[in-house]
Amino acid sequence: MRKIALRIKYNGTNYHGWQRQANDITVQQVLEEALAVTCGTDIRTVGCGRTDAGVHAWRYCVSFESDTKIPLDRLPLALNARLPADIAVAAAVAAPDDFNAILSCVKKEYTYQILNTRIRDPFLAHTAYFYPQRLDHDRMERAAAAFVGTHDFAAVRSVGTQTKTTVRTVHYFDVERDGDILRLRVCADGFLYNMARAMVGTLLYVSEGKIEPEDIPGLLQKADRRLTGPTAPPQGLAMSRIWYDGIVGEMMDK
Amino acid sequence: MRKIALRIKYNGTNYHGWQRQANDITVQQVLEEALAVTCGTDIRTVGCGRTDAGVHAWRYCVSFESDTKIPLDRLPLALNARLPADIAVAAAVAAPDDFNAILSCVKKEYTYQILNTRIRDPFLAHTAYFYPQRLDHDRMERAAAAFVGTHDFAAVRSVGTQTKTTVRTVHYFDVERDGDILRLRVCADGFLYNMARAMVGTLLYVSEGKIEPEDIPGLLQKADRRLTGPTAPPQGLAMSRIWYDGIVGEMMDK
Repeated sequence: MRKIALRIKYNGTNYHGWQRQANDITVQQVLEEALAVTCGTDIRTVGCGRTDAGVHAWRYCVSFESDTKIPLDRLPLALNARLPADIAVAAAVAAPDDFNAILSCVKKEYTYQILNTRIRDPFLAHTAYFYPQRLDHDRMERAAAAFVGTHDFAAVRSVGTQTKTTVRTVHYFDVERDGDILRLRVCADGFLYNMARAMVGTLLYVSEGKIEPEDIPGLLQKADRRLTGPTAPPQGLAMSRIWYDGIVGEMMDK
Repeated sequence: MRKIALRIKYNGTNYHGWQRQANDITVQQVLEEALAVTCGTDIRTVGCGRTDAGVHAWRYCVSFESDTKIPLDRLPLALNARLPADIAVAAAVAAPDDFNAILSCVKKEYTYQILNTRIRDPFLAHTAYFYPQRLDHDRMERAAAAFVGTHDFAAVRSVGTQTKTTVRTVHYFDVERDGDILRLRVCADGFLYNMARAMVGTLLYVSEGKIEPEDIPGLLQKADRRLTGPTAPPQGLAMSRIWYDGIVGEMMDK
């Protein structure tokens, strides 16, 4: 048996997220079915994080053990031949025995795309949140900066998953405009459940004047989810980058 | 009654093209249903051209007559509120009485997108043709140039629609690479049925060495559809630009 790491990319529109579920189709289930046929045995994968229904991944890491004889440089094409068009395996590499896609993760980045113009775009319906009112870039940028650092992020997480601590470190939270697209890129050592989308929803409240940028530190301290903005819709969100040490880190960044 | 022209944009993935059909859902039918509710009377539209099932439009012109009292600057948002997410009305303008979206057209441009890299992209599955073998840019460019000018294009049209003449003038046919995307932009005074996709298919044959760039003039002269390349798949094609004189031309180019 050897440990293998994959870099995959998926359009999450038609999936109930990454993680296997009893009654809904998920990316993990579809990938594991392709792995079973390609490698000849049942394979249990570990993904680098949960993603919700409708959320995408530009770069997502999966680890598993297998005794497959397929050369790893041929594994992506072999898997892609069996996967649907909305999931692609971009690369495969032999990983250290103790590698684990979620536990070995150093930090990750999510990108949230907002189409901020009066007319919606039929080609971005599933990959950006359409928000026609003009967004206040300066206010959003100041609010985003207030999230950076090591804080208790309980104010921006949904209940539903257990975690030892709600303290996380946000490394950066950038607001960039690219034509009609506003792109929010946030990097942290880890994300609580719905944390990225709740921070985005809070920035939208800041743009709308419902929260002041200066209020963010106090809201984090109060740790009350009801006082921050709503969870932004899933289609704007994508896991966009993930960092590991060593050979897997190199593959993920290629 | 006044004549109105609309600029619309649509993702054709879920439609059997523009033109109304008895048993399949089309963009024209969905737009006319939204117009009927918004304007209060049945409306028959004229589109600037047929598009096939799965073909897109970045800029498409529609004309119709109506006695609606809705101010034209508010018509796009009123229609978008009733249209599905894959069709958007971008602009509306009062057109001359004798304007007709298809008959008044001066020339139009189609763009064909090819994803030319080893790994497919889950976000381009419906908007680019995935072609993993490396394309020969130089050969394709030389073949494309041979189509430019006034010729009989019967060699690159499918039967199925009637037309007085198969002579058309191609103004330009450009091959541009943008990262992993090869973009073919072709502009003509008019296109025969499947002409854009048959020319793209012929360029793919040229890249593959099945046809020489120098063969194109002779193939046009022979006017035999069986000697040119296959009709390229629809999802790569989009009507991308259309030219009119006067106020409608200004709206379409904005």
